Amino acid sequence: MVRLVRNLRMTVSYDGTDYHGFQTQPTGKTIQDELQRAIESLVGKPVQVYGSGRTDAGVHARGQVVNFYTESSIPTERWAIALNYRLPTDIVILHVDEVDADFHARRSSKRKTYRYAIKNSKFPDVFERRYQLHLSRSLDLSAMDEAASLLIGTHQFTSFCSTRTSKENHERTLYRSEWIREEDVLYYFVEGSGFLYNMVRIIIGTLIEVGDGKRSASSISDVLLAQNRKAAGPTAPGHGLTLWQVQY
Amino acid sequence: MVRLVRNLRMTVSYDGTDYHGFQTQPTGKTIQDELQRAIESLVGKPVQVYGSGRTDAGVHARGQVVNFYTESSIPTERWAIALNYRLPTDIVILHVDEVDADFHARRSSKRKTYRYAIKNSKFPDVFERRYQLHLSRSLDLSAMDEAASLLIGTHQFTSFCSTRTSKENHERTLYRSEWIREEDVLYYFVEGSGFLYNMVRIIIGTLIEVGDGKRSASSISDVLLAQNRKAAGPTAPGHGLTLWQVQY
Repeated sequence: MVRLVRNLRMTVSYDGTDYHGFQTQPTGKTIQDELQRAIESLVGKPVQVYGSGRTDAGVHARGQVVNFYTESSIPTERWAIALNYRLPTDIVILHVDEVDADFHARRSSKRKTYRYAIKNSKFPDVFERRYQLHLSRSLDLSAMDEAASLLIGTHQFTSFCSTRTSKENHERTLYRSEWIREEDVLYYFVEGSGFLYNMVRIIIGTLIEVGDGKRSASSISDVLLAQNRKAAGPTAPGHGLTLWQVQY
Repeated sequence: MVRLVRNLRMTVSYDGTDYHGFQTQPTGKTIQDELQRAIESLVGKPVQVYGSGRTDAGVHARGQVVNFYTESSIPTERWAIALNYRLPTDIVILHVDEVDADFHARRSSKRKTYRYAIKNSKFPDVFERRYQLHLSRSLDLSAMDEAASLLIGTHQFTSFCSTRTSKENHERTLYRSEWIREEDVLYYFVEGSGFLYNMVRIIIGTLIEVGDGKRSASSISDVLLAQNRKAAGPTAPGHGLTLWQVQY
């Protein structure tokens, strides 16, 4: 009997607050573990889930994309409902479709978008506290936006990469890097060909220093040129960050 | 030595998910307990906090109002920061001011506004799941809004009151009772002179039956006239409900 192996792609949203990131770890629960557990409970076999990339502990996703192979004949439109039923409420599958056998959530991705949210007001918004960094001091948003725009283009992002990275090639292209204010919430949107370990959080930590007047906006170009993690600012907290979208 | 007793009013927001409601209970942690504990840790004396009203287990507040008496001379503008530092992150004091000695958060209130949120889409919004009731089936919102409008005015709300109430007078006046759609989220706003035990949640349970076509919109008037809890629909889950504003 020939069994057809299907490659299923899923768009997944999650509140990362209570997770040790996306990828399976020796200790602590992860999004990947939960997805694999839910699929296994549905199809009765262990399965390997491939994500478009890791997200750090506490980082969220509006549109993470994963794929996995299965011999199950469950119709495509039934998967999301069946898996959401088996998943904890802080992980929600939004869409499932069948893709070509050679599709791979990470290797096939063309662009990714992240969003970082800062609540810039006297007190935090209690309903958004898990998803926003709260900063009560005033920030120079126009300087932050000017600095952000200098990151657009193809650069060596070594300065904006954790030294714990295993990747050797630090060249990435950013297509969008800008701040948008909605009342007292500041959103940073960044779209790129790919991102290095902690890259968005280090960009944010550096742009906040610009907003604080500790660095000039134009100094961001020097940070890029330095190709040295020490030239950039601190790594901003993970909870303000959301993997927004992955494009193929 | 004469000690001046001050009456302080606070506007408080909270995520009620992990609480057994506002008011102190024999078992389970409550918002009132947390507020009293924080104030006591600041002033070094036990204190009694008076709320504008209870909220049920799991119900949230954007603008709950409380008052308490204290001999502390801490300046008014310092209280919110000092208390927020001592409170868990799911309770945030937004404003503190000093009021006349006879001000009482419940007895002095003139109007209250509640909001109920329904996420009406195939899957829940993972980031709003604590604050929205998720219903995937389609609802007739115009019928729900027509029914809601029939509740405006002064009525005996006995049918929309838990039989576990201790209040004898069930006459209340609603000034606003309407649905607003924002994309796939349905918000019900209700403003009234006061609310009976479970009143908004029973209204919602009944209006959802209207949206499901189980009742006609006009039948809401019969439910009011019946003055019988059994005439109304079920009590909707608490987590979609937020105490929005209290007016004085």
